[in-house]
Amino acid sequence: MGATSQAGNDQETPDQATVRPVRRRLSVDRRREELIAAALELFSRHDAEDVSIDDVAAAAGASRALVYHYFGGKQELYVAALRSAATELEARLRFQGGGGPIDELSRGLARYFDFVEEHAAGFAALLRGGPANRAGEVGEIVDGVRQRLVRLIMNQLRVGAPGPVLRITLTAWVASVETAGLDWLERRDIGRAELERLLVDHMVALLRVAADHDHEVECLLGTLLRDLASGPV
Amino acid sequence: MGATSQAGNDQETPDQATVRPVRRRLSVDRRREELIAAALELFSRHDAEDVSIDDVAAAAGASRALVYHYFGGKQELYVAALRSAATELEARLRFQGGGGPIDELSRGLARYFDFVEEHAAGFAALLRGGPANRAGEVGEIVDGVRQRLVRLIMNQLRVGAPGPVLRITLTAWVASVETAGLDWLERRDIGRAELERLLVDHMVALLRVAADHDHEVECLLGTLLRDLASGPV
Repeated sequence: MGATSQAGNDQETPDQATVRPVRRRLSVDRRREELIAAALELFSRHDAEDVSIDDVAAAAGASRALVYHYFGGKQELYVAALRSAATELEARLRFQGGGGPIDELSRGLARYFDFVEEHAAGFAALLRGGPANRAGEVGEIVDGVRQRLVRLIMNQLRVGAPGPVLRITLTAWVASVETAGLDWLERRDIGRAELERLLVDHMVALLRVAADHDHEVECLLGTLLRDLASGPV
Repeated sequence: MGATSQAGNDQETPDQATVRPVRRRLSVDRRREELIAAALELFSRHDAEDVSIDDVAAAAGASRALVYHYFGGKQELYVAALRSAATELEARLRFQGGGGPIDELSRGLARYFDFVEEHAAGFAALLRGGPANRAGEVGEIVDGVRQRLVRLIMNQLRVGAPGPVLRITLTAWVASVETAGLDWLERRDIGRAELERLLVDHMVALLRVAADHDHEVECLLGTLLRDLASGPV
């Protein structure tokens, strides 16, 4: 830094001195987000092992050194991209309009499959348990998403603290949706709309079983299940 | 090798010469199996990251060098132990007596949960997607087991080549059983017998949904589902 800019700094008002680090910080955050967005885009369309730091740098119009500077390595970049994808998925599922719980579930499922389709290769690689690395942080992110999806459905069903029967039923359904998503990406021998209807009907059937097994579930979901028996909700 | 044994070798009949390598081979295989059994025992009761090559060597009464000689490293030993566990699980589920398909399913599920309970820590670590490494070979073994379980259920249901609706339904159920097993190991706030009944009832409910969605499934499972409607099978 030369004498001129030093002199310039000396003449700054206190306000300017405060603003400058904030601006620099914002630009650092934005650069980081741009790199994550470029990485997520690549990890969504390819197996993680086929994506290099150079690919990400090129896609973001950045240098390889800058990517290393922000993330340290490919694994950290992958984790950051995965976190970003998890946040995006949860945000999409969170903001839903009114309607009955099963209607909400049905629309939530459609958004989930939009996400699956947009991130097809990355979703498949991650959940196939194949080339993607699910150790440590990656596994925790995936499990965290599952748990928050179950919590979201509990909220939709207006259930605060479920007993084991309902918790296991909802957790099982979320696992089955994930598995069905993976199956669908690999085979695509059933229409997406039909698959979504099948999975919603699975859920309704599973809730009925849960109610048969646990009187508390029957009380909690009684109205919902009675409404379902008399027609679409 | 001394002159005496050289001389001894020279006097062997052709039969003895053939027998000796076979014997040595058998003993190599047996030693390897002993090491795998010791490793599986340890990996079943602890997170893989808490098990060292030294622990396995000590448990098998072998030297650390021998373990490295047979397996090369801990990851290879873990994969070998996992393969052995997968083979064991499949063998247990395969040999079942007669009875209706749902009765068979129910008994198969009890054997599955026996296995889960016996290998509790290892099962949880592997499927939690936490500390265990699910990349590459490990992921392939886990997926292979899932696929063979689905195939086993198809055989029980006397279904040769299922369409997408039935395939997705069965795959979803297998995923949900795995998830429920993990939940049960972590919480144990529901009895195992009750959990098994819940999961069998889930399956019956899911099969009914599949039949509603796909006329072919209805034809395939019609008798089974009609029998179920009129009482226990």
